[in-house]
Amino acid sequence: MRKFRISTSRREQMVDITSQVQRAVGESRFSSGLCVLYCPHTTAALTVNEGADPDVASDIISGLARLIPRSWDFAHHEGNSDAHMKATLVGPTQILIVENGKPVLGTWQRVFFCEFDGPRNRSVYISMMNNETGAS
Amino acid sequence: MRKFRISTSRREQMVDITSQVQRAVGESRFSSGLCVLYCPHTTAALTVNEGADPDVASDIISGLARLIPRSWDFAHHEGNSDAHMKATLVGPTQILIVENGKPVLGTWQRVFFCEFDGPRNRSVYISMMNNETGAS
Amino acid sequence: MRKFRISTSRREQMVDITSQVQRAVGESRFSSGLCVLYCPHTTAALTVNEGADPDVASDIISGLARLIPRSWDFAHHEGNSDAHMKATLVGPTQILIVENGKPVLGTWQRVFFCEFDGPRNRSVYISMMNNETGAS
Repeated sequence: MRKFRISTSRREQMVDITSQVQRAVGESRFSSGLCVLYCPHTTAALTVNEGADPDVASDIISGLARLIPRSWDFAHHEGNSDAHMKATLVGPTQILIVENGKPVLGTWQRVFFCEFDGPRNRSVYISMMNNETGAS
Repeated sequence: MRKFRISTSRREQMVDITSQVQRAVGESRFSSGLCVLYCPHTTAALTVNEGADPDVASDIISGLARLIPRSWDFAHHEGNSDAHMKATLVGPTQILIVENGKPVLGTWQRVFFCEFDGPRNRSVYISMMNNETGAS
Repeated sequence: MRKFRISTSRREQMVDITSQVQRAVGESRFSSGLCVLYCPHTTAALTVNEGADPDVASDIISGLARLIPRSWDFAHHEGNSDAHMKATLVGPTQILIVENGKPVLGTWQRVFFCEFDGPRNRSVYISMMNNETGAS
């Protein structure tokens, strides 16, 4: 398992981590298999979405804030249950198929770390599964 | 990695792709392991849900449209940020366990491609991970 | 593939299944790889979130009920389309990285079965993928 760190600068933010993911996959020297990305935090998540126009990421962040307002009457005393809900809806993992030593992404796809209760120092875990013998 | 293509006919639609998935798993001749399904698009997603009553899929589609109206004041100029949000919430991957050469599904479960900004020609990627030696 | 059963006691409920998952991973005797958790039901799901304060789980449950009210005008005659929508948004799978024979979880993370249409008897499937030869 590999890890890398990111620092977020706002309470809610999508950070493009595609280059870190590509580097980790390249360093593993696996030609074929899976790349599992894991977020070990409960108020953050991982997603794959469009990276060409930064308005898409900001629309997702603002849309989620509209969908699940922080002002809802939650019980959890830390006042960040909106962030926990978003983490469960977006999810802590992303799986990428690896071919020819690279993660396969669609034309417009980039991998994002989704911060919902920052700014904080965060980690992302990466595990590679080799498929050289049984590639299909 | 295998690919198959689907054509969607409406802006928002769930297309049952279970038979294509079962065929791809069968052709791979893996008896035990994982089947990873990947959607390379940023305004579509993959899910597993009930397929017996088509009203379930149409309720999910209409419910998502009610949850995230296209008319919200988004910044992205293409006017499809609702579709990007839905893609992130539903997610681009599904993982199925493979046993005896078949994907394991619950009694009522079917695999669906979720179109949120069609009609379009779309692709689904499939990667198989073999587990013959280490099955548990 | 392993299975374990759980019984839920309310219509909507998050059940902490971390100890069952840890036991299944321990019994598999895999030191390194992936643990794939699969929910074979269409009105339930799996998530990873905070387990220290039970208010977090109850806030997620009550927040989802506020987000997607059962009273919405759905077509499906069983009257549980809210539960099907939540199952698709939270998702039927969770993937955990396994290291040193244990599933890797963040400090505050626990694994939860999410019941959205109980009380019922439910199952969770677990599949392990070994990574001893190619660990990265």
